[in-house]
Amino acid sequence: MSGPGREGSPGAAGTSERVQSSAFLRACRREPVAFTPVWLMRQAGRYLPEYRALRERRSMVEILANPELAAEITLLPMKRFELDAAIIYADILPPLAAMGLDLSFDRAEGPVIQNPIRSARDIDLLAAPSAEETMGATLEAVRIVRSELDALGKPLIGFAGAPFTLASYAIEGGASRSYAKTKTLMLREPAAWRRLMSKLVTVQADYLLAQAKAGASALQLFDSWVGIALGAPDYERYVLPYNRRLFEALRAARVPVVNFSTGTAAYIERVAEAGGEVIGVDWRMPLGYYRERIGAERAIQGNLDPCALLAPWTELRARADGILEAAAGRLGHVFNLGHGILPETPVDAVARLVDHVHARSRERLDGDGGRK
Amino acid sequence: MSGPGREGSPGAAGTSERVQSSAFLRACRREPVAFTPVWLMRQAGRYLPEYRALRERRSMVEILANPELAAEITLLPMKRFELDAAIIYADILPPLAAMGLDLSFDRAEGPVIQNPIRSARDIDLLAAPSAEETMGATLEAVRIVRSELDALGKPLIGFAGAPFTLASYAIEGGASRSYAKTKTLMLREPAAWRRLMSKLVTVQADYLLAQAKAGASALQLFDSWVGIALGAPDYERYVLPYNRRLFEALRAARVPVVNFSTGTAAYIERVAEAGGEVIGVDWRMPLGYYRERIGAERAIQGNLDPCALLAPWTELRARADGILEAAAGRLGHVFNLGHGILPETPVDAVARLVDHVHARSRERLDGDGGRK
Repeated sequence: MSGPGREGSPGAAGTSERVQSSAFLRACRREPVAFTPVWLMRQAGRYLPEYRALRERRSMVEILANPELAAEITLLPMKRFELDAAIIYADILPPLAAMGLDLSFDRAEGPVIQNPIRSARDIDLLAAPSAEETMGATLEAVRIVRSELDALGKPLIGFAGAPFTLASYAIEGGASRSYAKTKTLMLREPAAWRRLMSKLVTVQADYLLAQAKAGASALQLFDSWVGIALGAPDYERYVLPYNRRLFEALRAARVPVVNFSTGTAAYIERVAEAGGEVIGVDWRMPLGYYRERIGAERAIQGNLDPCALLAPWTELRARADGILEAAAGRLGHVFNLGHGILPETPVDAVARLVDHVHARSRERLDGDGGRK
Repeated sequence: MSGPGREGSPGAAGTSERVQSSAFLRACRREPVAFTPVWLMRQAGRYLPEYRALRERRSMVEILANPELAAEITLLPMKRFELDAAIIYADILPPLAAMGLDLSFDRAEGPVIQNPIRSARDIDLLAAPSAEETMGATLEAVRIVRSELDALGKPLIGFAGAPFTLASYAIEGGASRSYAKTKTLMLREPAAWRRLMSKLVTVQADYLLAQAKAGASALQLFDSWVGIALGAPDYERYVLPYNRRLFEALRAARVPVVNFSTGTAAYIERVAEAGGEVIGVDWRMPLGYYRERIGAERAIQGNLDPCALLAPWTELRARADGILEAAAGRLGHVFNLGHGILPETPVDAVARLVDHVHARSRERLDGDGGRK
């Protein structure tokens, strides 16, 4: 890894000094911090009453088309909690719509694609539009949030779905438990699979680079469910080469990139090989397990079980402390959940968790001369 | 592990000598075999046209109440393919109905429980009926199949859901992606969780022992999805002690027991600690990975990705060969999938796979003087 993490590198064009020296970006670069930075995947999500109220009146598609509204939602959790980074309010699937798939969000079933990919020909028909043309509203939301966050000295994270995760939605037409259609295409038509994944690398690299250009100070690639869907040998053969190309393309952004996946505990080393200054890990194994396997030259993000936020405070606190303890003694830890926050989560638990991570890590790091 | 696996043990009361010396039971006991035995989880399932035709006319509940029909379905795949064991046609959830939950099978959504467990009080109200009283139709089906299979010299596998898997259905009211309700009860009401799991151990031990008594020559415990739902520390705290008690209770059956789970690759050693002469593993890591971690004193069952049956034959064959190669040189391998066979599976692929596993393993084992 070179490029983003380096001392003295200018980072994203125009990111203010104050944002550059925020705890989150320092931790991503494995620099000493005064406290452990924390943010939560889906922190602007359905557990927030103000978000739920807004979603009663506006559809997902409306919100995504409205940069002011998307920016407002992005900032909701920043007002409630002492979070150390915002993540742009968006969805991983709209780039598929831009490529020609008929995407809608069904309230009960979640995302649905009416014309999923069924053949090699469908893949050849996919467009590869530029993000500026098709994802303009999200990029504009990034610009708006960025100017608001600069005043707070906090970074904004841009994100996108990883090629496999997008391919699986494009082929299944929605969520899946077996990923049978995706894996059938992958195994029966390897040449078509290569073309699909290559197109997705191009589109997603362009989209992520555009987010960095618009003001995202870090990027996260979500390979949600990849380890539930694929075993290690298939990951290596059908996913790793494409993720590697994507991470290589993202170096041009000169911002830290988080490589997040779930279900990959048993082969996290291979996942990390794809790239990313920060490896985002799920909650299925203790943080120490992942740290050992990932090696010291990467930062690590995670890894509280989202269900822990539903537990009594003593249990939640014990689990948070366990993670801080496992992270101690080495630079580069961003506290987060091991997957998205659940809609059932009590808002109070989030506030307490965020404050506790800060207070507890400050104690630890003070005791350690601020070095961890 | 002692009891079942021992040389010279009589095995299930009344199991014929021919069945006792079948390749499947020999492999479970880690005795030398002339070929690798193979069976497939859900081998009597929706990929079989004759099963689908039957299900058009009969509901799951009707079939389960009809021992002759359940026996007939159990034997369907045995007529089509050279499988080395049958598994009784049944479902993991009816014991929950016997305990007082209102279970139905919805064609679209799968199993639904109308009155899921919501509180400690609901748990105290659960009955713990004997299997002979409430699961009589399935036990009768075991008796019928057993007499048919004796003529073929093939063993019958009885099975049940593991306590966690049943608890999760009982609490969620159906399938789940986050298991948030289950984990909330587990974390907020640990005493109630202990009572629920203890009741399930009692009911499931009784049910499995009754299946062995009725003629099952082996038993399998399905902890489907446990590793998707729970990380290692929660598995150890909230599941392992109960599974261990259950496996201990099953020693009285004097038949080999398969301990099957999925999503547990990263902590398979802990899963194996619970017990079972055979550890059933999923497809997410190569067989060699599991073998190393499980140790030589257990047999291993697995672990072809069910999606591999949707691949072209050359790919399917290469994957089957990879598993046989990884299993070579040590006693105790039962070839199986790493999870249930998919409804999309072509029947021809199953036939070819079963025959290939036999032919290829015979070659290997011949070359090896029959010892592996």
